[in-house]
Amino acid sequence: MTTESLTQSQPATSHRQVSPTRLKILQVAAGLFAARGFSGVGVNEIGEATGLGRGALYYHISSKEDLLYDITTAYMSDLIAEGQSILESESDPTLRTQKLSRALMMAISEHLSEMTVCFRELHALTDERRRAVMSLHSDYQAIWSRSLSDGMAKGTFRPIPSTVLKGLLGMYFYSFLWLDPRGPQNAADIGDAFAEVVLRAVRA
Amino acid sequence: MTTESLTQSQPATSHRQVSPTRLKILQVAAGLFAARGFSGVGVNEIGEATGLGRGALYYHISSKEDLLYDITTAYMSDLIAEGQSILESESDPTLRTQKLSRALMMAISEHLSEMTVCFRELHALTDERRRAVMSLHSDYQAIWSRSLSDGMAKGTFRPIPSTVLKGLLGMYFYSFLWLDPRGPQNAADIGDAFAEVVLRAVRA
Repeated sequence: MTTESLTQSQPATSHRQVSPTRLKILQVAAGLFAARGFSGVGVNEIGEATGLGRGALYYHISSKEDLLYDITTAYMSDLIAEGQSILESESDPTLRTQKLSRALMMAISEHLSEMTVCFRELHALTDERRRAVMSLHSDYQAIWSRSLSDGMAKGTFRPIPSTVLKGLLGMYFYSFLWLDPRGPQNAADIGDAFAEVVLRAVRA
Repeated sequence: MTTESLTQSQPATSHRQVSPTRLKILQVAAGLFAARGFSGVGVNEIGEATGLGRGALYYHISSKEDLLYDITTAYMSDLIAEGQSILESESDPTLRTQKLSRALMMAISEHLSEMTVCFRELHALTDERRRAVMSLHSDYQAIWSRSLSDGMAKGTFRPIPSTVLKGLLGMYFYSFLWLDPRGPQNAADIGDAFAEVVLRAVRA
């Protein structure tokens, strides 16, 4: 993981450390949990839907709660890794905001089931794991925060309260409720439109 | 209700039509559902927590699902009525945006339990009722949309895509996840800061 320096809590499983089979299990389980709720879906059913069967499934997962935890952390870990990479490779504050914006909207569009599960079932996780999920969200926010501070240091951006940054990120995250990945406007276009909102909000 | 002209679907119960006892039941039940999930809370417990007991409780509610529906619609109906009133009483586009912004953040701050329940348990409602909740959200968005159109007609605002309006409203709604009503920044202040984001986004 490239985010070690940011992550204060235990790092969550990243897609990069996950086998293709496990990744498929996460996707299938996220789809089932999103459609019918965590408590409404049994391990047998996940075994059938993945084509693995219950026995082989247990070779890849240890419990349904582990699966829930990995679903709620894997996409966030990837998002953090991607954000970190944009932070390091793009130094222009405006272009960087545009790249972060696009990457975030595309990740949300690709992970609607995972986000639905995360928002709806977060309380089903143990306290410790819930804190780990929240910590990943803070790590992601820290990337935007550093990017905005950098833009301030360069005189491009103005200072904004942390609640405004939380609000701006909420604009993206809340979209999982209305975003239609097959809709007329694709995620990249929405990302560009949202980047414009952020840039207008932070421009000096 | 002052929102009849906007509401295309059946109007939901408004607080104005609700007795103080029923209002208390809604608040207590929302708190219990938010803390432990809809399925984790029994009618007996709601009866005890309200001090009414199971028998008297059933005098005020017909079922737990009815309660869930009223929790998810009552605060939205109030928000629509308040938004409609601001739309009618304030004609200056900038001042109106500031008033809508403040009213929305204050409503969110006052109804964190209701919003938690709404986002987490929406799938527990029947299809028809879920559509009614979604319809209330559209009605509320229509108020902002009319306010922005009016500002455009006056030359104060620029046209924005509907996804940007959805994003801007998401900035507010998503805050129920991080807002601390006892935090250093109160809801009115955050509403003012968010109004500034909206105004920067829409200013011609």
